[in-house]
Amino acid sequence: MNIIEIINKKREKQILTKEEIEFAVTGFCTGEVKDYQMSSLLMAICLNGLSQEETFYLTDCMLHSGDTIDLSSIHGIKVDKHSTGGVGDKTTIILAPLVASLGVPVAKMSGRGLGYTGGTIDKLESIPGFQVTKTEKEFIKQVNEIGVSVVGQTGDLVPADKKIYALRDVTGTVSSIPLIASSIMSKKIASGADKIVIDVKVGEGALVNNIEDARTLAHTMVEIGKRYQKQTVCILTNMDEPLGCNIGNALEVQECIEILQGGGPKDLKDLVITLASYMVMLGKEISLQEAKVQVIEQLTSGKAYDKFLEFIKAQEGDITKLMVAPKVFSVKSVKTGFVETIDALKIGKLVHDIGAGRTKKEDEIHYGVGVKINKKPGDFVTEGEELIKVYLDTIDCKMQDVLDCFVIANDAKVNQTLIYEVIE
Amino acid sequence: MNIIEIINKKREKQILTKEEIEFAVTGFCTGEVKDYQMSSLLMAICLNGLSQEETFYLTDCMLHSGDTIDLSSIHGIKVDKHSTGGVGDKTTIILAPLVASLGVPVAKMSGRGLGYTGGTIDKLESIPGFQVTKTEKEFIKQVNEIGVSVVGQTGDLVPADKKIYALRDVTGTVSSIPLIASSIMSKKIASGADKIVIDVKVGEGALVNNIEDARTLAHTMVEIGKRYQKQTVCILTNMDEPLGCNIGNALEVQECIEILQGGGPKDLKDLVITLASYMVMLGKEISLQEAKVQVIEQLTSGKAYDKFLEFIKAQEGDITKLMVAPKVFSVKSVKTGFVETIDALKIGKLVHDIGAGRTKKEDEIHYGVGVKINKKPGDFVTEGEELIKVYLDTIDCKMQDVLDCFVIANDAKVNQTLIYEVIE
Repeated sequence: MNIIEIINKKREKQILTKEEIEFAVTGFCTGEVKDYQMSSLLMAICLNGLSQEETFYLTDCMLHSGDTIDLSSIHGIKVDKHSTGGVGDKTTIILAPLVASLGVPVAKMSGRGLGYTGGTIDKLESIPGFQVTKTEKEFIKQVNEIGVSVVGQTGDLVPADKKIYALRDVTGTVSSIPLIASSIMSKKIASGADKIVIDVKVGEGALVNNIEDARTLAHTMVEIGKRYQKQTVCILTNMDEPLGCNIGNALEVQECIEILQGGGPKDLKDLVITLASYMVMLGKEISLQEAKVQVIEQLTSGKAYDKFLEFIKAQEGDITKLMVAPKVFSVKSVKTGFVETIDALKIGKLVHDIGAGRTKKEDEIHYGVGVKINKKPGDFVTEGEELIKVYLDTIDCKMQDVLDCFVIANDAKVNQTLIYEVIE
Repeated sequence: MNIIEIINKKREKQILTKEEIEFAVTGFCTGEVKDYQMSSLLMAICLNGLSQEETFYLTDCMLHSGDTIDLSSIHGIKVDKHSTGGVGDKTTIILAPLVASLGVPVAKMSGRGLGYTGGTIDKLESIPGFQVTKTEKEFIKQVNEIGVSVVGQTGDLVPADKKIYALRDVTGTVSSIPLIASSIMSKKIASGADKIVIDVKVGEGALVNNIEDARTLAHTMVEIGKRYQKQTVCILTNMDEPLGCNIGNALEVQECIEILQGGGPKDLKDLVITLASYMVMLGKEISLQEAKVQVIEQLTSGKAYDKFLEFIKAQEGDITKLMVAPKVFSVKSVKTGFVETIDALKIGKLVHDIGAGRTKKEDEIHYGVGVKINKKPGDFVTEGEELIKVYLDTIDCKMQDVLDCFVIANDAKVNQTLIYEVIE
């Protein structure tokens, strides 16, 4: 077998065999297939696609490139959750204790942020003392004791995906549905859960920017899940605006607490209730309606918040010491009207640039910085009224850049749909 | 500007600007654009194409990446000739003295072979003493004195094309018409000729394997030529069979001498007359018919051969010392019938493997080895009659591999067209 012939085949829109896909992926991991050959193949895949079979072979090959986690010693149906990534998306921190409080075990591995969207692990580390590193044994022990644990990745899961993803990132080959689907699903399956809920973000700043592509991606992932007997539900959600009001690590944890205490912004709350309901439905094998009633009850009764405190304590975090940045600037509207849009990408970039994110892996995060949106799309604002608060420490930003994230119009905007559809 | 955005644009089938193409090519030469990024862009170009404007910008950018040759001190219209490469293609060695004998100056730079098709420079070096290295000044002086010189490349012509071509070769991105066209034309324009004749080979072993692609390639090159006021004529020719009977460096020079003395195989002779006629038509600004009469006269009168001897002597070659390999094996047909096909690729590979070609740049060439075809397609052969002679020195070959190059059928094959059409 020869990598050039494999590339030529895909360039000619032919179907690759299991052996050819394995040859390419394994060869790339060992260095026999060069990065310039892999990127050429990846571009051919972006443009000529992969069949369902080819996508499955690719997933399987990446899945078996490294360690897999065995969660069988945890009693009950383990439900994992994944989001394709969005600005202000802090749902995992709410969902993990919320779902666990209903007896569905949550043994979750999360990632760090790179680029404009933050990572759950970074957000949790904004809580002083919080430990994200556990051995597999400690991780499983905690889930068996209190029903929930969220840690950084343990072991060497899907190294092939890591290597391929790093290459895709710098070669313009990110936006391919089969490549996205196999990347997500290989990681989820390697993490050992029994069932999977995936929040597929749709919008300008997301991996897919139209509903048709989101549907195809969702169907592809559901099919891959079936191959491994892992029931998968995809929820297609709007990602044109930032999720919730707070963006920045500690500020997002604050907003999670608001939701867990029964308050918080409507969009975030609605999304959390939807995702949690599907997770509970799958984990307890009950109806969606029944699951939803239980989820809402946990939020209003404070039981979800109690589980959150238990979870943070178990991982040595001290929530009373959570701090936001000291310098707070109120940015006021220069015109009167309705907020039409808030540009999620621009807000993400702004918060990243004032220190909340990393550009390189080694970069240090400023946990306290970020923004708190006061006026969300559809809200009326008068000239001079506060649009947003910016929390800064050592890195400044231009107020004009903050204002540029908002579009203020004369007419009230029609209410946007948050949840488009569910594919299972 | 950012290479990832440029790749994304081409992936999305958008048209790149002059600046974006320059950024990619120049960046690749300096190392700022990585090979894995360039290969991804090249695959996107293979699949989504380049417009006429983009192809021109790419050509221009490669052309200006290195030295260019100034032939203005040579009197008369300089006509260059190029072939997209074929097995047994030795036309340059015949055309150069033939055209020069009619007063059209030939200042030609040729390449070495790599892969299954030989290079003119290697073939000339099979003549003991022949010097292929000259300074630009010596090269021009010789053309002014005797009307012809064929040398290896002087100076650093189109380094961007060299670097890109080496990458295309190992990333499955060779077969793209705009990439082929810009590669050929940037080299031809940098070499300084006023007008260009290109032999576009069509067939299984060629860069393009169907007449439609060959037409598109030809039209693209003619258009590029126009941009530089360099009239370009493309002749589309059949490359399903090897050209002529002899393949291998010294053996090919022997066959060139046969043609220059008025003999030689019909296919090679026909092609030489056609190419020479177009070169003379362009160089002397006369009609094609008139040019053809003059060309045939030079071959039959021996004047072309006289110019050949003068040319070889001027470059210190001793034609009396030309040697073929000592061990000659006659391979005989195992069945009676008509030769239907001779597989050009297989023959090329065979001759390469017995030592006539290189796999790596450093490989040494066995100048005397090769084959002499006794039965060409359409010929009748009886069992036990000689099909081909194989000339070997230190590397042996299996006789079965030689036989496998031939398909013998019961019925006479219809005569194949050698010259499909001319595009100018």
